[in-house]
Amino acid sequence: MADETRETGRAGEGPPSKQAVYGAAIRLFARNGFAATGMRELAREAGVNLAMVNYFFGSKKGLLKAILEDYFSGVTKVLEANLSGPDPLEDRLHRTVVAVARYVQANSDKMLIGLTELPHDDPDITEFKAQWFGRLHAMFQDGFRAAAPHIPVGVIGPALVGLVASRHLMRPVVERVIDPDMQETADAAYPELIADLFVYGVSGLTGNLGNRHA
Amino acid sequence: MADETRETGRAGEGPPSKQAVYGAAIRLFARNGFAATGMRELAREAGVNLAMVNYFFGSKKGLLKAILEDYFSGVTKVLEANLSGPDPLEDRLHRTVVAVARYVQANSDKMLIGLTELPHDDPDITEFKAQWFGRLHAMFQDGFRAAAPHIPVGVIGPALVGLVASRHLMRPVVERVIDPDMQETADAAYPELIADLFVYGVSGLTGNLGNRHA
Repeated sequence: MADETRETGRAGEGPPSKQAVYGAAIRLFARNGFAATGMRELAREAGVNLAMVNYFFGSKKGLLKAILEDYFSGVTKVLEANLSGPDPLEDRLHRTVVAVARYVQANSDKMLIGLTELPHDDPDITEFKAQWFGRLHAMFQDGFRAAAPHIPVGVIGPALVGLVASRHLMRPVVERVIDPDMQETADAAYPELIADLFVYGVSGLTGNLGNRHA
Repeated sequence: MADETRETGRAGEGPPSKQAVYGAAIRLFARNGFAATGMRELAREAGVNLAMVNYFFGSKKGLLKAILEDYFSGVTKVLEANLSGPDPLEDRLHRTVVAVARYVQANSDKMLIGLTELPHDDPDITEFKAQWFGRLHAMFQDGFRAAAPHIPVGVIGPALVGLVASRHLMRPVVERVIDPDMQETADAAYPELIADLFVYGVSGLTGNLGNRHA
């Protein structure tokens, strides 16, 4: 995993023209979708010629994998830094959710690429994402096992992804309805708010599963 | 709104060939994405000729709008039936989340079309979704105003969408990692589980906002 993380770190580095291609791909895949983005359009947006795109990343799919690798290895680092420790599950979980939400906020285009294409991915990309999901899932399993063994992490994990991601996913419609000032305040408060909501929720499930009205 | 709801109900009705086009569009838009689905492919999948697709729905965008109208008017009905009432906010919210989660489970392809295309939509479709979001948001505002006026519904609403939707969105990768038996159990338990998580979370925020460690 260390090797992949290092490899990933390089995807957005290297010569300026490589960085330009990488940045253009993130913007276009996130705005227009992977399928709707053409290699020629990508080269134009990056201000390089088509051969350059192929030289740096092999193919459009190679570019997509570099972006996903980058994104998921970032999430992995956030979990590694926050999820384990000697303190209670609630505290570890709270700081993990805050950190993940901030990471997603800072990498929202990469997150959108990873999430919105999911039902449309080809099998190779689905498998690639599933391998990352498997690793992240295992980390959460380890975090929960001792403190809350009856919590179904395979259900709670995707729920958390949705909680953290949906604000960014829904932004185009939300910003037409909600006051922009309130939006800005909400952006700043979101990581803490969503961590509170999630940790209260999980604590409730842990203590009272199936016993809501008690 | 009543008229639109009625119109919507008809999108999937009418002559068998119209139903076939409507069903094919839901399947293809959800699997391959709106941009990647061609009108010819759609006609082939529906087993009708191309002129028929145009005759029934005008255009690919017309089809998309019919699907979205159908989906959002269904959500509206679920909220209307569950969100208001004389009982405590927690109970109204719990049964609303359960009902929405079941509705989404039964209409997951339509939901995926509405959600995954969001960052890629053209302005006309974004505006169309924003109008629906505005209505649903207002219904939640009304539900919360008296019982929990300080809860930021514009933040909590999208969070709930993410909670309910992400299980379906992430299914292609989750089902490669999680045991299928457990998946089936989780599908059955999901609406209640997610409602518990959300209502515990909101109750925590309501009683202790900014005071988590007290």
